Amino acid sequence: MSGDRPKLGIVAGGGGLPVALAERCRASARPFHVIRLRGFADQAPEVLPGETIGIAEIGKVMSALRAQGCKAVCFAGYVKRPDLAALKPDLRGLTILPGAIAAARNGDDALMSYLVGVFEQEGFRIEGADDVDEGLTLGHGPMGRVIPTAANSLDIRRGLEVARVIGSMDIGQGAIVVDGLVLAVEAQEGTDAMLQRCATLPQDIRGRVGDRRGVLAKCPKPMQEMRIDLPTIGVSTVEGVAAAGLAGIVGETGRMLVMDREAVVAAADRLGVFVLGVDADGDPGT
Amino acid sequence: MSGDRPKLGIVAGGGGLPVALAERCRASARPFHVIRLRGFADQAPEVLPGETIGIAEIGKVMSALRAQGCKAVCFAGYVKRPDLAALKPDLRGLTILPGAIAAARNGDDALMSYLVGVFEQEGFRIEGADDVDEGLTLGHGPMGRVIPTAANSLDIRRGLEVARVIGSMDIGQGAIVVDGLVLAVEAQEGTDAMLQRCATLPQDIRGRVGDRRGVLAKCPKPMQEMRIDLPTIGVSTVEGVAAAGLAGIVGETGRMLVMDREAVVAAADRLGVFVLGVDADGDPGT
Repeated sequence: MSGDRPKLGIVAGGGGLPVALAERCRASARPFHVIRLRGFADQAPEVLPGETIGIAEIGKVMSALRAQGCKAVCFAGYVKRPDLAALKPDLRGLTILPGAIAAARNGDDALMSYLVGVFEQEGFRIEGADDVDEGLTLGHGPMGRVIPTAANSLDIRRGLEVARVIGSMDIGQGAIVVDGLVLAVEAQEGTDAMLQRCATLPQDIRGRVGDRRGVLAKCPKPMQEMRIDLPTIGVSTVEGVAAAGLAGIVGETGRMLVMDREAVVAAADRLGVFVLGVDADGDPGT
Repeated sequence: MSGDRPKLGIVAGGGGLPVALAERCRASARPFHVIRLRGFADQAPEVLPGETIGIAEIGKVMSALRAQGCKAVCFAGYVKRPDLAALKPDLRGLTILPGAIAAARNGDDALMSYLVGVFEQEGFRIEGADDVDEGLTLGHGPMGRVIPTAANSLDIRRGLEVARVIGSMDIGQGAIVVDGLVLAVEAQEGTDAMLQRCATLPQDIRGRVGDRRGVLAKCPKPMQEMRIDLPTIGVSTVEGVAAAGLAGIVGETGRMLVMDREAVVAAADRLGVFVLGVDADGDPGT
């Protein structure tokens, strides 16, 4: 299986995804090499084969990948917009900087697409995390033992609708809906922060332990470069959803990364929240 | 002028608007009567002529308005969605409750429109705050001495665009945009909370004192019952915008309430932020 898959360069940002990918490669005997982006790759341990390179040293990244024989590249993990003034680009980085800045003006997604294009032009094949291992993404239907009830249908439908519109405007990926009311929309603060503020809203417009109501919905943006950047959930998401009194999480099948799947299922079952995958083109309300 | 205007019933929710309306009535010698909604009318002092009535005692509200000879009614101030289980409706309240619950399922605006309809059917004329005194709303152009720069044009345009789409989905009224990036969207947490979290975002994606960037944009929802519920700003909004490092506030001419206008202008001038009114159908970007 993995014998015919080229060595993978994992360009690692923050969070646990790069490590998860490295573990999947190791488990399937696929060779890999990790480029830790300096200041971002907070969880990619140095014991993994690889090296640390600055985010604007594009030439150095490409040379390292070539030297390692990596024909495929997966960009994985979270990278915040860097402070342009603090960037230290190398020569190759300098040549793409004007294009990157111009693309960034059109939003995060345009920037991502631009960077993917730069690597493709240099002959690298770009793989998304779910190309590397589709077991990393949300499957169809409920993931644990908790199943959404009929009472959750409206919120599931509305949550996905709002998340998709928010995405189509390049605002963000997530929304929280309870009894048809949109309690929160995620922009730059991140899902955990959105869940935390939801837990502080008046008790009468949200659910609680013992009477869970509403959902967290996360969808990729329609123009999102899905090979780089998918909505992600992990144990902390499940815990935040539980603390906010929500009934569950809904995402699109194959279009949401699930970090540490076993732990996510265990937390969801223990806390009594559902984690549901619906097909992107299917009817979400059932 | 006010001689031919009927006595005004001010149905008072939370915040300073009911008091501002009462003061405008008094200044223009228009008779008025304040219905303080129990538990909500936190700032309508009891020295104003009026009485306190529960939010679901619709019959009692109408009788009081009729007994006082109020042919016109203005709903003013903030009312959170009440806990249905805790409501104590009177007989008239009971008759409209099923309709109100059904309307509420379609969002806050549908509920507002339903309640307006109930009062209109009973012969009351509904006035918006800007019908009572158009000096209460945002005028065209900048309000204080600070003028937006060309660098703010993109954010003004994008902020209004996002706020309008958010509104068209009945999510909320406000958004914060800095250098084209949507930092925050307001749902149920309110503008002040949104500004506070904006101030905690990483420094490199937002402005600061001395290098103010970006705008807070607030627009009414397209289907909003504008006679009841307009976006509102006050001194705390200006202070929150300043603390978040934003350059200014933009709203639609005649469609944003400005509480305590003199103090708002003084705060904006002192803190160096603009407060801009653009025509709802005009080009916002200039």
